[in-house]
Amino acid sequence: MGATYEAAGVSIDAGEEAVRRIGDLVRSTTRPEVIGGIGGFGGLFALGDRFSDPVLVSTTDGVGTKAMVATAVGRYDTIGIDLVAMCVDDLICQGAEPLFFLDYISIGRLDPDHVTSLVAGVAEGCRQAGCALVGGEMAEHPGAMEPGEFDLVGFAVGAVERSRIIDGSAVTPGDVLIGLSSPGLRSNGYSLARHVLFELAGRSVDDPAWDGHDAPSVGDELLVPSVIYAPAVRALLDEVEVHAIAHVTGGGLAGNLVRVLPEGARAVVDRSSWEPPRIFGEIQRLGEVSDDEMAKVFNLGIGLVIAVPAEAAGHTLDVVAAAGRRGQVIGDVVVGERGVRWR
Amino acid sequence: MGATYEAAGVSIDAGEEAVRRIGDLVRSTTRPEVIGGIGGFGGLFALGDRFSDPVLVSTTDGVGTKAMVATAVGRYDTIGIDLVAMCVDDLICQGAEPLFFLDYISIGRLDPDHVTSLVAGVAEGCRQAGCALVGGEMAEHPGAMEPGEFDLVGFAVGAVERSRIIDGSAVTPGDVLIGLSSPGLRSNGYSLARHVLFELAGRSVDDPAWDGHDAPSVGDELLVPSVIYAPAVRALLDEVEVHAIAHVTGGGLAGNLVRVLPEGARAVVDRSSWEPPRIFGEIQRLGEVSDDEMAKVFNLGIGLVIAVPAEAAGHTLDVVAAAGRRGQVIGDVVVGERGVRWR
Repeated sequence: MGATYEAAGVSIDAGEEAVRRIGDLVRSTTRPEVIGGIGGFGGLFALGDRFSDPVLVSTTDGVGTKAMVATAVGRYDTIGIDLVAMCVDDLICQGAEPLFFLDYISIGRLDPDHVTSLVAGVAEGCRQAGCALVGGEMAEHPGAMEPGEFDLVGFAVGAVERSRIIDGSAVTPGDVLIGLSSPGLRSNGYSLARHVLFELAGRSVDDPAWDGHDAPSVGDELLVPSVIYAPAVRALLDEVEVHAIAHVTGGGLAGNLVRVLPEGARAVVDRSSWEPPRIFGEIQRLGEVSDDEMAKVFNLGIGLVIAVPAEAAGHTLDVVAAAGRRGQVIGDVVVGERGVRWR
Repeated sequence: MGATYEAAGVSIDAGEEAVRRIGDLVRSTTRPEVIGGIGGFGGLFALGDRFSDPVLVSTTDGVGTKAMVATAVGRYDTIGIDLVAMCVDDLICQGAEPLFFLDYISIGRLDPDHVTSLVAGVAEGCRQAGCALVGGEMAEHPGAMEPGEFDLVGFAVGAVERSRIIDGSAVTPGDVLIGLSSPGLRSNGYSLARHVLFELAGRSVDDPAWDGHDAPSVGDELLVPSVIYAPAVRALLDEVEVHAIAHVTGGGLAGNLVRVLPEGARAVVDRSSWEPPRIFGEIQRLGEVSDDEMAKVFNLGIGLVIAVPAEAAGHTLDVVAAAGRRGQVIGDVVVGERGVRWR
């Protein structure tokens, strides 16, 4: 009996079984532009003639070590939502409509149940974002990863009319900054959160996240799925002259907002204008993390910042509320050195 | 002194340093359609009006555990070529022109030298394929990965005129199968190759790959970069009526060729029509791997199969040769049950 792929830790059969089981999930995300079924070498999407001068906008991202929390809790069906959020909410910063999505799963041991749960989350995220899941790859990495360990990577493509690209150049002193609420960490800062909660404070995922008999578990709190802002922003783009959109990911609010500010524009953000979700305070307290470090690593409760003319602020809040998102004015833009100042 | 991202194993500064250093590499791949520099939330690519009814074709893939061989050898600047090959040579199976590419690197410890080498390979692959590197993500996964350990994931997007999509439906009995040579394993079968060479046979990456004083090392042989077939296929599509293209990846020649065969078409492949590179024979011998298993796991020296009308075979071989690729007739298509038969 010679060496086989199976003996080397790779199961082609388990891969094929997983592919069969994710078919319905994939089909649940389809759009009229998608051509053909699954199984081709590439995903096909007919752009059609909706755009007269289409610019394709593409993004890639992962879920970082939030995957390790999912493994520790044993819950795999929501982290795909985080993955889609990370990618499509980067797309919409340029004003693009999310069109399609691909996912890549690397995993120590290809268990069809495990993989199907991961893809179920991705499909749920795609349905929320309105984009089609057109392709994906599952890679079994025996030796490189423990059996239950995985990584999840996403790739999103959207399109925007060239004349409607949003790049922040329209930002003007007097603009108002609207922050959209994030109920949790999204997918950033998990290495610090895990370090503080699990290593320094010795918590387990089953411990309560804070004092009080109605406190969620640390695991539940850390796995709160990311809000997908794309539909609310898409609705807004039809209604309001949006000057800039910044997705708050690694680098925090200031680190991302500065990326869309033109020279001569200074954002002033009022930290007291919103209440960060409780988990951030717990992490800061238990790890004695400085305010600066907290603000660089975490979203602190604001996942997306939108700059609009002051007179459009009220309508902006109405439109995002109608799309189910909570927003608030968190600051404004003044004349000054390009950058972000906390107030 | 409170907890910091740095203490948790994540260095934002090292990430920023790496981003600075890869700027020139990214720019070396640009195309006229690319808008803006790096640093935006998404990569922008203006499709223009070259396509009257554009269909976007997208693929994702990784390099599997070839990454572990690169780490063992300490050579990081070619595996990005493999990554691009895996993705764009899936694209071209549908007749698409590769347009742009994104990469995702996860790594235990973000060392700017290490990451820059990885991206240098990706950029080299993109230049070879003619596609622009428009985005990427670097994720540091302390705890989940050892410092030198990494994974590399790619995403490619191409476009094809809807009327020119290749899906295998044109394959007819009488068609000839042209195989394009692969000098090594590309990026498939590394879990079996590593199992046989390192575990069963006890070889190290520095040992000779086979007997003889001019033998390359096992590491060199396993890291031979994948050929990127896209430019040769693009040239061919302008010259010859191509009926089907199959990229030989996981599942081997038969497992991939069958994907593009219509009902009633049976491919007959003559195994004696080409000589597999020596490394495959060594793996088979040392692991006592069966012929069937070898053929399911490895490309065995044929990385891409193209079905063309018999009368176009000679011209096909000329065109791919002019593009620098070696091809040969490896079989034909007969009337029969959909599938692949070895002769």
